[in-house]
Amino acid sequence: MPIETIRWVGDENGYAELIDQTLLPIRKEYIKCSDVRQMWSAIRVLSIRGAPALGVAAAMGLVLGLKESQASDTGNLIKDLKKQKEYLETSRPTAVNLFWALERLEAVAFENRTLPPVELKRKLLQEALQIQEEDRRICRAIGRNGAELLNDGDGVLTHCNAGALATADYGTALAVIYAAHQAGMNVSVFADETRPLLQGARLTTWELKEADIPVTLICDSMAAQVMREGKVDAVIVGADRIAANGDTANKIGTYALSIIAKEHGVPFYVAAPISTIDMKLLHGDDIPIEQRDPEEITQWGERRIAPAGIEVYNPAFDVTPAANIDAIITERGVIKRPTANKIETHIE
Amino acid sequence: MPIETIRWVGDENGYAELIDQTLLPIRKEYIKCSDVRQMWSAIRVLSIRGAPALGVAAAMGLVLGLKESQASDTGNLIKDLKKQKEYLETSRPTAVNLFWALERLEAVAFENRTLPPVELKRKLLQEALQIQEEDRRICRAIGRNGAELLNDGDGVLTHCNAGALATADYGTALAVIYAAHQAGMNVSVFADETRPLLQGARLTTWELKEADIPVTLICDSMAAQVMREGKVDAVIVGADRIAANGDTANKIGTYALSIIAKEHGVPFYVAAPISTIDMKLLHGDDIPIEQRDPEEITQWGERRIAPAGIEVYNPAFDVTPAANIDAIITERGVIKRPTANKIETHIE
Repeated sequence: MPIETIRWVGDENGYAELIDQTLLPIRKEYIKCSDVRQMWSAIRVLSIRGAPALGVAAAMGLVLGLKESQASDTGNLIKDLKKQKEYLETSRPTAVNLFWALERLEAVAFENRTLPPVELKRKLLQEALQIQEEDRRICRAIGRNGAELLNDGDGVLTHCNAGALATADYGTALAVIYAAHQAGMNVSVFADETRPLLQGARLTTWELKEADIPVTLICDSMAAQVMREGKVDAVIVGADRIAANGDTANKIGTYALSIIAKEHGVPFYVAAPISTIDMKLLHGDDIPIEQRDPEEITQWGERRIAPAGIEVYNPAFDVTPAANIDAIITERGVIKRPTANKIETHIE
Repeated sequence: MPIETIRWVGDENGYAELIDQTLLPIRKEYIKCSDVRQMWSAIRVLSIRGAPALGVAAAMGLVLGLKESQASDTGNLIKDLKKQKEYLETSRPTAVNLFWALERLEAVAFENRTLPPVELKRKLLQEALQIQEEDRRICRAIGRNGAELLNDGDGVLTHCNAGALATADYGTALAVIYAAHQAGMNVSVFADETRPLLQGARLTTWELKEADIPVTLICDSMAAQVMREGKVDAVIVGADRIAANGDTANKIGTYALSIIAKEHGVPFYVAAPISTIDMKLLHGDDIPIEQRDPEEITQWGERRIAPAGIEVYNPAFDVTPAANIDAIITERGVIKRPTANKIETHIE
């Protein structure tokens, strides 16, 4: 079983608990968020991260915000909700899932505006837990579908952290590994450390170890050598965004991995929920590559590891062409050798 | 002009100066080695590294050792030489070039055993400077030969540090860039940071910046994206060892780079002196892959960046098959599409 990244304790007057990911992999500690400000800063300082996990955190944050509301009627409660929603939106303004979850709760409040305040608060907690439950089901379904592609004894290579720590449950790429493991298969994992932010070294190895799944840490540049030695039977990665034709944007380094896998005849799989597929995006070339802070590469904590003022190129992600992807695994099934047609049929 | 990594000042009673590479890229500082113990510890703590540079350092170290000799006849001086040689060999017992240089000086001493002590000391300094001069000529010839493969405006991607800091002069892979730059060509460089020890981030970027050559630092996993954007016209790397058929052992990550270059139609070049070619080694599969300390990957200085006790795979180098190499550049010329026959002809 993977670890529980975020959970709600008690009724609508209860609190949330989440693993403080800034302390990983040194120690596992839950932060108790009893009020909205605590949740706001947990999101802000990246104690919690990953699109689905952020949706759940934001929804729970809104429930926390309403605990404090003194509104005696629902009209005023909804006014308070809007205020708290705006406040939570400032915690991480680029997190799409956070906005999505907050809007979903706002819509529920509006639909139930005839309920008394206490009942509406309860309703909103239910909705937050529903978001979590939906994510859990999606993770489990992705896991089940993907596990069909693996065999007993397989070595799986993964990049970054598309695991339990990024979602409300099994994760996406790692869901496949958890599901195979739970089905009694022996699977072992090679985890790319994933420069520059080392999500693989810090998070993926940690959560797999917690789940007693054998994992070996490597530098990103070692994946080709591991494949050459015949130790890798499949590469499985997550996705930030999938275009209508199957081109997949994911953490920088994914594209290189797809080329290396092809060279060694190792199947390359993308595991992601349907919601990641953006049908308005015809192909991956339309995705602008975001540049991140050079200091992610030139600094290590307080220490400088490159000459002062050196030019740096630090793309956040790259795009793997659909031609390099053997299958996209979603909660609905597996799209083998993805094309625009197959994807359209799949999501209908 | 590249920086001077190591130099001798004065006559046989002089001293050596070398850049303390442990301080790079934060600051450039020369260490003055006036006696053999200072040179021993400079080698030991990696203030100086790189096969050719170590040969020069060891030879100069031996000259320093003999400065102290009170021997009144050459027989006793040679006895002292053997003692100092054994001492210097303990500074870095795996460095082949260090042993080679010390043996070369010992042979010179034996050949000149009829000279009086003072003259023999002078002779040995000449031999140390000769080793440095030979390396310089090799570097320059590699540079000239390789520059013929480049065009004005080219972007060159390199891995690790096969530069001035590893040799007595221009380096090998970087020699090509220095030579092109000196010939008035506009070349710019993408430097892989080169995990785990970051020689690219710490050393390559630093020495190219010192030489006013435009350089951009990237993580190893970003090379494919940079090539996809059409910014790379050639990949040039050094070599630890080249087999008789052209298979090349070099810093881990080189093999991956050769696959990625092939995928993008970018020529992949290896620059190395003839002495790197090991004709007794028929192909690269015969080279055992040395495993290095897991802490190179799991630790950052004092800080742990992966869970305690995590399994790590940390190969020091990989082998790039000759089929992925468009040319090997040596001091004698360029071997295009290297094969066992072409290499044999080249070194004859």
